[in-house]
Amino acid sequence: MELPKGFLFSGLNCGIKRYRKDLGIAYSIFDCVATGLFTTNTVKAAPILYNMNLLGENCTKIRAVVVNSKIANSCTGQQGLENAYRTAQKAAQVLRIDPRSVLLASTGIIGLQLPMDKIEAGIEEASKCLNEDPTPFAEAITTTDTFIKMASRKVEIDGKRVHILGIAKGSGMIHPNMATVLSFLFTDANISPSALKKALKDSVEKSYNMIDVDGDTSTNDMVLALANAQAGNGRIEEDSPEFSKFFESLHEINIELAKMIVKDGEGATKLIEVRVVHAPDELSARKIARSIVSSNLVKTAIHAQDPNWGRIVAAAGCSGVNFDLSRMDLHIGDGKNTITVLKHGLPCEFNEEEATTILSASEIFLTVDLNDGLHSATAWGCDLSEEYIKKNGRYKAWAKTL
Amino acid sequence: MELPKGFLFSGLNCGIKRYRKDLGIAYSIFDCVATGLFTTNTVKAAPILYNMNLLGENCTKIRAVVVNSKIANSCTGQQGLENAYRTAQKAAQVLRIDPRSVLLASTGIIGLQLPMDKIEAGIEEASKCLNEDPTPFAEAITTTDTFIKMASRKVEIDGKRVHILGIAKGSGMIHPNMATVLSFLFTDANISPSALKKALKDSVEKSYNMIDVDGDTSTNDMVLALANAQAGNGRIEEDSPEFSKFFESLHEINIELAKMIVKDGEGATKLIEVRVVHAPDELSARKIARSIVSSNLVKTAIHAQDPNWGRIVAAAGCSGVNFDLSRMDLHIGDGKNTITVLKHGLPCEFNEEEATTILSASEIFLTVDLNDGLHSATAWGCDLSEEYIKKNGRYKAWAKTL
Repeated sequence: MELPKGFLFSGLNCGIKRYRKDLGIAYSIFDCVATGLFTTNTVKAAPILYNMNLLGENCTKIRAVVVNSKIANSCTGQQGLENAYRTAQKAAQVLRIDPRSVLLASTGIIGLQLPMDKIEAGIEEASKCLNEDPTPFAEAITTTDTFIKMASRKVEIDGKRVHILGIAKGSGMIHPNMATVLSFLFTDANISPSALKKALKDSVEKSYNMIDVDGDTSTNDMVLALANAQAGNGRIEEDSPEFSKFFESLHEINIELAKMIVKDGEGATKLIEVRVVHAPDELSARKIARSIVSSNLVKTAIHAQDPNWGRIVAAAGCSGVNFDLSRMDLHIGDGKNTITVLKHGLPCEFNEEEATTILSASEIFLTVDLNDGLHSATAWGCDLSEEYIKKNGRYKAWAKTL
Repeated sequence: MELPKGFLFSGLNCGIKRYRKDLGIAYSIFDCVATGLFTTNTVKAAPILYNMNLLGENCTKIRAVVVNSKIANSCTGQQGLENAYRTAQKAAQVLRIDPRSVLLASTGIIGLQLPMDKIEAGIEEASKCLNEDPTPFAEAITTTDTFIKMASRKVEIDGKRVHILGIAKGSGMIHPNMATVLSFLFTDANISPSALKKALKDSVEKSYNMIDVDGDTSTNDMVLALANAQAGNGRIEEDSPEFSKFFESLHEINIELAKMIVKDGEGATKLIEVRVVHAPDELSARKIARSIVSSNLVKTAIHAQDPNWGRIVAAAGCSGVNFDLSRMDLHIGDGKNTITVLKHGLPCEFNEEEATTILSASEIFLTVDLNDGLHSATAWGCDLSEEYIKKNGRYKAWAKTL
């Protein structure tokens, strides 16, 4: 993995969890252009409010991100905001940077205050072991995740090698108060704030915003991008020809991480990719794809390897998009073989055995062809299994083992 | 059960299912004022399209409703519409009424054509055994239901005794292509078409539209109301003082049936009632209540008897309503005892053991107090259990046993 220049990382256990890493710092030796996208939940955790405020004032001189897991610092009132402020202060002090250059993230249980003594001691210790390996940071942000989620790309821009690194966490999503989508993107690209913002926004729309594990939006969801310009390329602007190169690499990372999050969905045994093609517009395609991938009924049918296409059509119809059923085709595949179950809105004969074989694969591809335009969209989800419910029943026992 | 005058019912097995009843007729000796509310799914089954068209032309001379279960007549194209037409023709012929006075409903598997020979023979037979007992009709419309759903009220209007009977089906909702919300209301009230329409619409908004089993809307959902004026009361108009009396009785029936549907949700072990109070407007209250009751995370937490109130707050925040968290209180009860878990947006100390005892009840009451107005709304749902997933895995085996 080739890493962006000028970023250092650390992660350790500061005592919020019993054994596993629970505190991470990402630090840039140089000022970063930064941008963020935050949860649309009306209830926003303290670090979300803190970052939204901070990035409104300063989006060009960001130096660090401090993250803790197990406690979300959400529904914590004024005390929670003060604790966020103190966390940034402490990091600034030990890293010798401006407090207003430190971004924050938390994930975990809603309604508990951060143990500030542990956090502050942890920041002090973490600041001493910063190094180029991002793995401990990736570990420190996990909650119910069963594997860490990192992806990177390099791309030549303006004759210079530009690197982008993404680190995310899922989405044992059944515990939204124990788990949240967090994603951090670090790049040595030289890019303007508005170009970085546009790249992140456009990409998130088609990656994290197109995945579903169980339909809820956490109070702590956040995607941050930091760019420190150390690659030495000419500055990328929104309208510069190099923008699309940067965007494509960033987007590949986000898609890769988004799919990892879905694969690690609690109890998930299958990745479901829903592609809506030949739609009259992109928004319609996106709505239909999301509606299908979010349907409990589709999720459970696919879990049971049941080619129950009626549920897919019904879920498409629930999207609120007014499509013409008499044009719709529907295909189900496993990446190698595909069967057509609906043609122009009417059922097709298909071999039940072949269908069951396809649905026994670990990645299932549903293609909805509206035959009504040039636009398309893709969404990703996972199946819904008994394990999902079981894990949830063990929630309290699990939280104690951390 | 006192029944509305002038209505006759029958239900039998016509051979669509192997053993159980699958065809029902409700017949009024006199012309009925009728109104209906139909699925908002973009994909609408043939009987839905048929009824919408018919009630557009004739809403004062309705005489019968013919229902079949196991096959939904959905995604069946032109042939499906022709079969709907033939069903109405056959019923009209044997009942000696106008074909344009017959309403239709189907529920079951999507994508199969109705076996018209069986349907037509069944209608002929069913017409011969019409009588006052609505039970066989209630049985004939069930699919995955574990019990039949009927409720009735009598109310004195204008010195006359008016009767209303409601018959509904769930909502083994995990099979939206095997199950659908159908509800039929029969009354001997004398009421104008517009008053009946208004009563039904207002009531459905606060009953069937406030329940959730697993979030999807069937292609066949339908509520019909038929009123034959045999009670002899002076005609109820929208603005007449008797309207609210009629409405209240109708609404009580709908609430009762809606709760029965939820209790019979597949794999459900608990009824969850969510009440949002002191909201600035009713729509906001309704959105928050629905968002909470539809959340997989809330459903699974309650199934696991986990007083995980963070999920309830997060689900409220997902509703799209912009409320002030710092005013919100949250109470959890079992109908006898109640604990307060959140006060003015901040967590309260509560006894974990007491919480677990409350959550072990079969009916759970969540009250969200926004402390920000005079409006309220109630929604009903069920928990999400492993049984839900298991039953789904047995879907094919189950369909064959019918």
